[in-house]
Order: sequence, then C-alpha cells, then structure tokens
Amino acid sequence: MSLNRCVFLFVLCVACREMTLAQEPFHHVLTSANSGTTESSWEIDGQAVTPDCEHAWSIRKRTLRGGRQEGVEIIIVDNGAMEIKICPTRGMGILSVAMNDVELRWDSPVKDIVHPQYVNLESRGGLGWLFGFNEFMCRCGLESNGGPTTDRFINNVGDEATMDLTLHGRIANIPARDVGVRVDRQPPFAIHIEGQVDETLLFGPKLELHSELVVVPGAASFQLVDIIHNSGAQDQEFEILYHANYGSPLLEKGAKVVVASESVEPINDRAAEGLTDWNTYSEPVTGFIEQVYLVTPKADADGRTTAVLHNSTADRATSITWSVSELPYLTVWKNTGAIADGYVTGIEPGTNFPNPKPVEREAGRVPVLPPGGSHRMTLEFGIHPDHESVSRVIGRVGQIQRRN
Amino acid sequence: MSLNRCVFLFVLCVACREMTLAQEPFHHVLTSANSGTTESSWEIDGQAVTPDCEHAWSIRKRTLRGGRQEGVEIIIVDNGAMEIKICPTRGMGILSVAMNDVELRWDSPVKDIVHPQYVNLESRGGLGWLFGFNEFMCRCGLESNGGPTTDRFINNVGDEATMDLTLHGRIANIPARDVGVRVDRQPPFAIHIEGQVDETLLFGPKLELHSELVVVPGAASFQLVDIIHNSGAQDQEFEILYHANYGSPLLEKGAKVVVASESVEPINDRAAEGLTDWNTYSEPVTGFIEQVYLVTPKADADGRTTAVLHNSTADRATSITWSVSELPYLTVWKNTGAIADGYVTGIEPGTNFPNPKPVEREAGRVPVLPPGGSHRMTLEFGIHPDHESVSRVIGRVGQIQRRN
Amino acid sequence: MSLNRCVFLFVLCVACREMTLAQEPFHHVLTSANSGTTESSWEIDGQAVTPDCEHAWSIRKRTLRGGRQEGVEIIIVDNGAMEIKICPTRGMGILSVAMNDVELRWDSPVKDIVHPQYVNLESRGGLGWLFGFNEFMCRCGLESNGGPTTDRFINNVGDEATMDLTLHGRIANIPARDVGVRVDRQPPFAIHIEGQVDETLLFGPKLELHSELVVVPGAASFQLVDIIHNSGAQDQEFEILYHANYGSPLLEKGAKVVVASESVEPINDRAAEGLTDWNTYSEPVTGFIEQVYLVTPKADADGRTTAVLHNSTADRATSITWSVSELPYLTVWKNTGAIADGYVTGIEPGTNFPNPKPVEREAGRVPVLPPGGSHRMTLEFGIHPDHESVSRVIGRVGQIQRRN
Repeated sequence: MSLNRCVFLFVLCVACREMTLAQEPFHHVLTSANSGTTESSWEIDGQAVTPDCEHAWSIRKRTLRGGRQEGVEIIIVDNGAMEIKICPTRGMGILSVAMNDVELRWDSPVKDIVHPQYVNLESRGGLGWLFGFNEFMCRCGLESNGGPTTDRFINNVGDEATMDLTLHGRIANIPARDVGVRVDRQPPFAIHIEGQVDETLLFGPKLELHSELVVVPGAASFQLVDIIHNSGAQDQEFEILYHANYGSPLLEKGAKVVVASESVEPINDRAAEGLTDWNTYSEPVTGFIEQVYLVTPKADADGRTTAVLHNSTADRATSITWSVSELPYLTVWKNTGAIADGYVTGIEPGTNFPNPKPVEREAGRVPVLPPGGSHRMTLEFGIHPDHESVSRVIGRVGQIQRRN
Repeated sequence: MSLNRCVFLFVLCVACREMTLAQEPFHHVLTSANSGTTESSWEIDGQAVTPDCEHAWSIRKRTLRGGRQEGVEIIIVDNGAMEIKICPTRGMGILSVAMNDVELRWDSPVKDIVHPQYVNLESRGGLGWLFGFNEFMCRCGLESNGGPTTDRFINNVGDEATMDLTLHGRIANIPARDVGVRVDRQPPFAIHIEGQVDETLLFGPKLELHSELVVVPGAASFQLVDIIHNSGAQDQEFEILYHANYGSPLLEKGAKVVVASESVEPINDRAAEGLTDWNTYSEPVTGFIEQVYLVTPKADADGRTTAVLHNSTADRATSITWSVSELPYLTVWKNTGAIADGYVTGIEPGTNFPNPKPVEREAGRVPVLPPGGSHRMTLEFGIHPDHESVSRVIGRVGQIQRRN
Repeated sequence: MSLNRCVFLFVLCVACREMTLAQEPFHHVLTSANSGTTESSWEIDGQAVTPDCEHAWSIRKRTLRGGRQEGVEIIIVDNGAMEIKICPTRGMGILSVAMNDVELRWDSPVKDIVHPQYVNLESRGGLGWLFGFNEFMCRCGLESNGGPTTDRFINNVGDEATMDLTLHGRIANIPARDVGVRVDRQPPFAIHIEGQVDETLLFGPKLELHSELVVVPGAASFQLVDIIHNSGAQDQEFEILYHANYGSPLLEKGAKVVVASESVEPINDRAAEGLTDWNTYSEPVTGFIEQVYLVTPKADADGRTTAVLHNSTADRATSITWSVSELPYLTVWKNTGAIADGYVTGIEPGTNFPNPKPVEREAGRVPVLPPGGSHRMTLEFGIHPDHESVSRVIGRVGQIQRRN
C-alpha cells in the first residue's frame, strides 16, 4: 500500500470517527450508585452541545439546602419554551412545568420540596405520604397505590401475614439511584433526563422504575417513557398511577376535563352526588369533599387516548396522551376546596384505579410481571396556550369519542 | 433654590438616611426555604453590630457532623451573661441555657443531639419521640401533644377514620424552614432569633409556628414570643406544651417548684400517692415512676403567672413567667429516677394538659383557630443566681397566690 | 549534678519518650459525637505508621453520595491479604470481605448501601429492616431481634403497655456516634477499627454497643471484639445475633455448613421437612421457602466453638469461632432461592434464637445486664482458601464434636 493511500485511509478514518462522535448523543452522569457519587450542582446549555439548534435550551442541576429541603436535588430543564423541574430525590417526580402564563402546578399546603426522610408513610393512619405531596406529577406505586389498607402477603417463612399498605405507595419518596442526561446531537436535538428508582428487597418486590423524560427544544410538550422491570425470579404484581395535579389559574370555575370514555363511574356516594357535572369544575369551595371519577378511556385506532384540562374560556389547556394498552384506566380527582386548603384536580392515568389494592386485585386490575419482565409506558404531556390549540386538542378527543 | 440650600438639603437627607439605617435592626437570613439555602456556619458579634453595647455578645451558627448528629444545626447565642443553644433542626427547641453555674438542662440517656431522620415517632407504641428527647425546652404539638392514643378524624373522602397520635406530636422533630437573626441597633440592643416551622399538609392541619427568641445583652432572662398560625381555610384544633426540663444540680433533694395555683390535680393514682409533697423533690431514686401534677395557675392583675424551680438552699432558681390567657394550664412532671436513667423535672405551661387528645377535647382544653387565625404566646425564662433574687421571685409567686 | 550528667539524663529522657511514643498505638478519630465532627474522607497506610511491617496495609474512609446512599460512610481496611468494608452509618456492620476469589458477601435484591433514613423498620408489617439488608454481617438487636411481634413492657407511667418489635431490632440502622482507628506500632501491628453505637432513651433501654474489629496485616482472619454495656441504673434485657450472610460462589449446590452441636432443631414444619439434609445446600431453587435450624453448639475445652461453611469441593471455606459462654446459640438460615431473589445462607451466633422475643424470654434465652453491667463477645472470622486449610478447620470441628 502506498504512503498516499495510507494517509488517505487514515484521514478517512479520523473523519468518520469525528462524524460518529458528532452523532453520538451528549451524555452526562449526575448520580451513580455504582461509584457512590452525585454532583450537587451542574449545568449545560445548547450552545455547548447543539450549536446548530435554534432554541436556547439549558439543563441545570442544583441541591437545596435548609430545613426539610436539605439535600433535595432538582433538575431544571429549559427547552427554550418551557421550564420543567424534575426531582430525583422524590422518585423522579415532576415538580412543575411552566410555559409563559400556563403553569402545570398547584398550591399545596406543603410549601417545601420535602426530603423523603421527613415523610413517614405509615403516619396519620397510612396517609403520611401527604406530608410531602405538592408535585405537579408524582408516580404512585410500585408495589401498590391507592388508599391505605391492610393487605395479605406470604412472608419469609411461607405463612400468610398482613401488612399495612400506605397511601399511594413508596415510589414518590425513593431517591433515584442513577440519574443521567442525554442530548441528541441531531435534529430535533431531543433532551433526555433518565433516572432509575429501585423498590426492591428480600422477601418483597424486586421492581425497578427506569424513567425517562424526553423534551425537544422549543416544543410545547414533553414525554415520559417509563419502564417498570421485575428483576426478581418470580411473578410480581405492580401498580402505577401518574398523579398529575393542576391548580389555579388553569383550574377555575368553568374549567373542564375532556376525555373520550367508555364509562365514567363515581368512586363513592359523595362522587355520585356530582356525577352529572363530573367533568366541570367549580370555584374554590371551603370544606369541599373530594369527588373521584373512575374513567375507562376510549382510544383511537392506535390505541391512544387523550385527556384535556382547559380553563373556562378554553384558551389555555393541558393534555395527556397515552396508550390504553399501557395504562387502561383514568382517575379524575376533583378536590376544589379553598385555595389555602389545596384547590386542585388530578388527571391520573394508571394501571388501576386508586382503590385499596385488594379491591383492585379482585377486579382484575392489578397486573403481574413475569420474572425478568417489563412494562413500558409512554405519556405525552402537552400545553395548549391559545384558543386554536385548545380547540384542536378538544377536537381530537371528540374524534376518539365518536369512534365505533 | 440656591446651591447652598441644595447642598444643605442633600446633607440633611444623607444624615437622615444614615440615622434611619443606624436604627434599622441588623438582619441576617440563616435559612431560607424560598431560596433553598442555609449557611452551615456563621458568626457575628457585638463589636460589629452594636459597638455602643456594653455587653460582649455573639451569635454563632454551626452544623454538627457525624453519627445521628449529622446535619444538625445549632445557633449559640452568648448575650454576655448567658449562653443559649437553639436547634433549628429540632423545631427551634432550646438545647440548653447556662449562666455561670446555673444550667438549664438535664442528663438524658440520649447523649446525641439527634437528627429527626432518626426519630420514628410511631415506634415503641407511639413513644418514638423519646429517641431524640434531651432538650432543655422543646415544644409539644401542634396537631396534638400528650400521651399516645388513637384519635378519630375526617379523612379525605369525608369519612370518619382513625389515626394514631404519637407522644407529644411532631413539631419538635420538624426542621425550621426559615431562620433569621435580628439585632436592634438601639438600646437595649435586643437579639432576636426567628424561625418558622410548618406542620401543614393536604387533608390535615395547616399550622405554622412562628417562633422568636428575644434576649437582651447582659440580661439573666430571655423571652419566647411564639405565634401559631392557621394558614388553612377551615377551623383547626391545635395543642402546644412548652416542655421545659431541669436536671441536676438545680434539681436535687429538697428542691422545690413554687407556683400560684387555683388547683393542683394528680394525673393518676401514682401521682396521687405523692400529692402532699407534690412540689418538693427527692434525691434520685432508682426505679422511680413518674408523677405528674396538673396545675391550674393563678395570675396577677395582668393575667400573668410565674412558676419557680429552686434548689434546696434557695440560692439558685429558674422561673417561667407567662400569661394564663395564652397558656392556661401548667403541668409539673416529676421524674426523679436515677441520674443514669434521666433525673429530671418538667415545668410545662400549655394550652392543655398532656392527656391523650380525646381526653383534652372532651374537657374543653383543645383550642380551635379560625381560618387565618393566630394564637400568640410570650414566655419569659429567668435565671436567679443568688439568695436575694430567688427570694424576690418566690415573693412574686406568693403575692399572686394571695390575690382574691 | 555535673553538666555532663544533666545532659546525659536529658538525652535519656528524650530517648525514653521517643521509645514510649513509638510504642503507643497510632490513633485517629474519624467521628466524634462530643465535638460533633466527622471526616468525610481520610486514608492512611502502613508505610506511614508501621514502616517495619512487611504487609502493605491501608485504611480508607469515604462517604457515598447520591440516592439512598447519600451520606453513607464506609471504612475500607486492606490488610495486605483481605479487604474488609465496614459501615459506621449502618451500626458498624461489615459490608463485605474479600480475599482473592473468596468473598464473604451475597447478592441481595437491595443493590444500594442504604442510609438508615430510608429504612422504616415498622413498615411491611414490621419487616422494614429488609429494605436495607444486604450486608455480609450485621448485628441484630439490641433491645430485641428475631421476627416481628408485639411485646409487653412497662411504660413511663408504670403501666403495662404493648409495643411492636420489628424484625431484628434497631442496631443495624443506627449510625455510630464515635468512630476511631488504632494501629499497634509493634508486631503484629494489629489494626483496630472502633465504633460506639447507642440504643438509649428515657423510659427505654440504655444499651451501648462498643464494637472493635481487629485485623493483623497479612492475616486471613479478623476478630470482632464487642461489648454491650447497660449504662442505665436498672436491669436491662438485651439480645444480639451476628447475622453473617454468604452467597454465591461459596454457597452452591453441595456446599455444607459444619458445626459441632449438642442439638439441631428445625424452627418450624417447613424446616423440619429438610432436617436430614439441614447442613447441605442445594442449587438456587426459585420459590424456595427459607429453612431455619436452631443449633446448640458444642465447645472445646476453652469453651470455644467453630462453624464452617465450605464449598462443594471443600477447597474454599469460611469459619466463625466464638465462645459459647458469650454466644450460646447458633442459627443456620438456609434461603437458597433464585440468585435474583437472594440466594443466601446465614451463619448466626447469638445470645438467643431469632424467635419473637416473648418466645425467647419464656425459654430463658434473653439475658439481662445489671446496672452498669457489660457483656463481652469475641468472634473470629476466618477464610480458608485451599483444600488443606479447609480440611484443617473441618478437622477442628470434628475434634470438638467428638469430645465427651
């Protein structure tokens, strides 16, 4: 081989490698269980990673200090259009999303972002979860979700024993063990925030949550791509509910939830009282007792459905789109008490309804993962900031509803 | 306007502003929930802030490291006469006070200043609070205090449910979310240590404790000025008890508690056994079972009363002075077991007696705050280091007792 | 005295002092409760401390960050032959021991070294301890160990009350309050890792664990020298079990536990099924229900006994040697489920069997410490890396078994 030819091939190789490198996503580890490390603060922006991207995005990690927030880690993703706050310390929950004057959040009586060390799930009759509850979206599960109850299980010696299941399970109060950031270097330069949360123990579930938030710079929506994995060698039940919560000003008198449904059932007599107006919200009413509706959603040809929450003038809305094969049930939680007490509604796709687990098991709504098995779920959260975009998404729900 | 006149006015303005500034208190934020920050160590002294003050005071903040103390924050106020240790991490409790050989403290079997993360209130049959209990003064409340019990409440779905109330409630194990220091720049140059502790949740109490410790440089006393605020939109019960604890050497055989009382009732048969000597203390007695006396204090013309604990020779004492309209009840806890087991007495003004909450509710001793309402309490803790000052404070109690 | 004589004496003094200093052990405090300090990272090696030692030893302290490992402190002792990982944050437990291809450890479904703040012992019906369980060796106690149960106790007012005892007690989830390193400067240059863990409270036990791990550079064994001290003024029950756990590859089909025994009893019917093969292990069997055997060991003339676990080819083994007067009972826990579910056996010397405490109390197996009393225990953990050393230690057990 001539020298010239060698040089040519070498140059070609280098060029290829550069191209490959340029195409490999940017990757950065924020927390690693294996190395026992985390970065208390870190940031990156689009200029450094995706100079060709037209949207000025950034990702910041910071760690809160002081009081019940001490040590709480937050990742703030600004995609140039929206700001999304993710909390690895609280099970990769989403604290809030903001796009101009549309905010996905609510005013909880809990003002701090509470570190799980201050949340005793067993307290207050199994309602201790509420001491930390103020996220826009937290996952409920994985061994169980729903109201507190006593459940039977087979213990280490093979006997049937009982345990108290606490409200909405553990996953929202378990810090992620591995957290990382990936950014695609090719259009549309998607940003990925990944985190793994383990709910595993000897003589108990071996369930891993592999969560991923995907957001494209400039977009008015983002995706959650979650996998629940059974790392154990035996069948394992699980439950998950995406507890997405919305408060004022999106929630207001005359706001509505719009969803294509096969059926809508009130969870109890109290909910039955409001069944005719189940999808319309009132102004804050002091002393309002929650009303919960159990919706079996109807899907489009691809098996996907959309739930919309829009304000009274239908010029601000948010939506969740998901596959009913992945999350077949939807819970609508109306809790329109006084602002100071927590004026909020929950739009909550799930594998089940938030009844106590034995009720759900009896109804056949507690899925089981085989050994090594996984359940994958993709949810798209959208913001619709004007009349036209609201009309469009409501139209989509109408189309689904009209299907045969 | 002539130039001279302009210059004169300008100089006047600057002078006024300087005077105003000089009169504004020194203010420093140590912990801020809004900014998610805290200072792990900090200090200031009188020379820097109040050069005209004749007493050499200082304030130091530090953070303990290691074991169950990891992350515990302490503020040490030296007013030139007394050293006061405050613990923001433990609900703004007071760890100890020392003035020469008079120390307000006790020897608890718990030797560490235990971070709340290691205190599971639900453990040991609802007595888990004891795993962290070694302060000179901790607040008991706010949803409840007193012995562990089961209470009824209305849950999120409007049903009556039960929950286990744990010994002395949560507030002593909740870190303060906002902590600050203020120092007046004018005589008597009072030092203020402020902290807010939240006990709030959805479907539960929305109670905020706004605490303030005020101490004047050189003084042998300090004040607590506390406000309990209901930030919710509905009526809210609360209970608070100031659990002030005293051990050896102030507590000794022949030490006495002196208080003007309308009545003194033993809490149970065991206390009834010791009723005739209820206000006199014995030496440490191994295996001593606690005796608790429920005192309805008598007040002076201003509605204020004083409780005194003095040693056997009546030349060392400490006192608490408060308003019976704010804290109408006083509990005296005699727990004169062996030194190694915790030789201690509690002098505990409260909104109630430390019976289980249902007992207190039935007796009409559980106050209710209206929506947005507040309850303010001022307590003065004094040290009396010699025979004369002890006589004087005992005399004051006698005067109150003799009122018609 | 002549000047010469003075000089001579002075030189002699200095020399003596140097020799004394040289003979004093190296000492370093890692965590001190009194000063409220800890060192987040630290290291030392043999060259600096024992230049005459032929084995290149080192001690490293580090602090894990991120997820449920945040703040977990680890001490890694390399004695030139073995690496021992100790966890002060988890009650001075031993995470793992490794000597070439012999590792004392197991694959727990819990992958993180979990900070105690994430372990709620009361959860899952008193089995919450399992959320952190993955050590090679953790202590179970001190107030109680064994299965969850309800026990009676005398509460603060002298009444009988009940409390839930949780699986294996608290000590493995209490951080050490004082941690230090000592290294002898004379042969055999023993390394000592010391830690104190308190389980003390008012109206409860006042039990202190003073633990010491001793390892000689180059040795294939190490010792635990533990003292449990009752710092209270009254009699105090205690229980301790050394939960030493072994997984693959040492544990495998055909592996055996060898121990000299007076008797071997199955803990329940399930264990009775496997009694004939109680000391032989199977391959991992999915769904295997644990079998527990209660062994009363037989001792040598010095009152010491040895338990051995060896692999199927008897060329890798580990042993524990202890005094039956200190720890009269041995529990063998066979839990040979699937690898993914936790394939593990426990060889567990203790003051008692892991039955619920009331059962053990009734059987006379709950020792009582008098006021100020102590119980001292010495355990030697050995690794036997070849056929010859395995034969030797099995031979020793045989000798004990054949004694009259």
